[in-house]
Amino acid sequence: MPRFALRLAYDGTDFHGWQRQEPPGLAPLRTVQGELDRALTEVLHAPVACQGASRTDAGVHAEAQVAAFTADCRVPIERLHAALNARLPEDVRALAAWQVPDDFDPVRDARSKGYRYEIARMQPFVARLPFDRRFLHQAMHPIDVERMRIAAACMVGTHDFQAFAHAQHGRESTVRTVHACDVGTLPDDRIMIDVSGNGFLYNMVRIIAGTLLEVGRGRIDPDAIPDIIAAGDRSRAGNTLPPQGLRLRWIHYPADRSEPGRGFDIA
Amino acid sequence: MPRFALRLAYDGTDFHGWQRQEPPGLAPLRTVQGELDRALTEVLHAPVACQGASRTDAGVHAEAQVAAFTADCRVPIERLHAALNARLPEDVRALAAWQVPDDFDPVRDARSKGYRYEIARMQPFVARLPFDRRFLHQAMHPIDVERMRIAAACMVGTHDFQAFAHAQHGRESTVRTVHACDVGTLPDDRIMIDVSGNGFLYNMVRIIAGTLLEVGRGRIDPDAIPDIIAAGDRSRAGNTLPPQGLRLRWIHYPADRSEPGRGFDIA
Repeated sequence: MPRFALRLAYDGTDFHGWQRQEPPGLAPLRTVQGELDRALTEVLHAPVACQGASRTDAGVHAEAQVAAFTADCRVPIERLHAALNARLPEDVRALAAWQVPDDFDPVRDARSKGYRYEIARMQPFVARLPFDRRFLHQAMHPIDVERMRIAAACMVGTHDFQAFAHAQHGRESTVRTVHACDVGTLPDDRIMIDVSGNGFLYNMVRIIAGTLLEVGRGRIDPDAIPDIIAAGDRSRAGNTLPPQGLRLRWIHYPADRSEPGRGFDIA
Repeated sequence: MPRFALRLAYDGTDFHGWQRQEPPGLAPLRTVQGELDRALTEVLHAPVACQGASRTDAGVHAEAQVAAFTADCRVPIERLHAALNARLPEDVRALAAWQVPDDFDPVRDARSKGYRYEIARMQPFVARLPFDRRFLHQAMHPIDVERMRIAAACMVGTHDFQAFAHAQHGRESTVRTVHACDVGTLPDDRIMIDVSGNGFLYNMVRIIAGTLLEVGRGRIDPDAIPDIIAAGDRSRAGNTLPPQGLRLRWIHYPADRSEPGRGFDIA
């Protein structure tokens, strides 16, 4: 049977994360993978279980998650995403579908992933319009973006990121390569932290963002970042920021398994 | 007792509209006014019932609703909105509070109100990112914005808008003055319809938007608009578009009852 990939976007607010969760004896939790498997099974008239490139946590959003599945697909592939959208809830959208080699593995084949963490700078006694609250973290303290930029540059490179991983990361190696870590400002008093790399440990982007926010608030010195990385001590890094500020923005694959016309630029 | 005004913003998606609804024998419905009265009563330690300038329907949003109440306010007025926000749910925010003359009536004193209706132009087989879906109406057909502009210009002026009112509008006169009706395009394939005027009938902005959309789709001729207005026949105007595309953007009051520093520009 042929193998296919899907590009997906979702508002993670009302999902218990990407991964299917069916606790024994209880109703299955509402997950993106669960909704997608249901919609695929309905459209393709056969049980389908897809595999996601990134196990986003509850509350984390995606502009371009990639999922793969193997099935006979009688729907023309360029129309599959529209057929799925007719059966998916409004908070998850299929954006495209394409055929991939039979051995396509969305996790292992990914060359790099890009995430954005977005923070709203709150001024004392100034309230924000409530329209984008599902997509950012509100920080109540004054923030020095220049300090954050200096600290962010220290994240780039191949390092042991043990200090930036959840204790239950479950991986043998905590060495990862961060390709870029950029801090910038957006309209409406927002700060973005864009992190890309070849792979991320559990909670790694949210801990990097939390550490950079502590730097911005003046509670961690930017020059201390290399030390914190070298010490591998989770307690010296910042808090894990809440999920709603995080979104998966793109995943790059080699040309032979990329979305047609998007080559090395799936975003 | 002194009288005060509040500027409020809300995401109307999860509210049964502005107005308090307490069906006898049933639990009160979740409304913006209900939440605000509860928060005001908690903050001011006395029962408070506020009056809104605009009875927005279920699902309609506001960037700057105005509400008035009469009460002893021991909180410094420039901090009242922050005290309220600590007790309001995240989808409604108090943005400012100021004292007004004792005879302030937020409905009667309003000189003009501005609404925006936002439409996303959907291309065949192209799905939108699901991040702003709570704030727009998705239109599936090709739309000619130039035609909409010509029709929009015909709405401006003092007319009997009976053809653009819900049958249960409940008003003696259906004559209203539309100050401006502008159609424009926004990023991400969105169309905005900005309507301002001295007052609006029930569903009037949503019916104007629905009529302009029919014009954009080619099903109503732009030159027919003056006729439709003159005939006063609801059935010749377009559909009432759904609430989520609509937001109340500003309300103007005379200088002696405007928010300080915002004069005739509350937005």
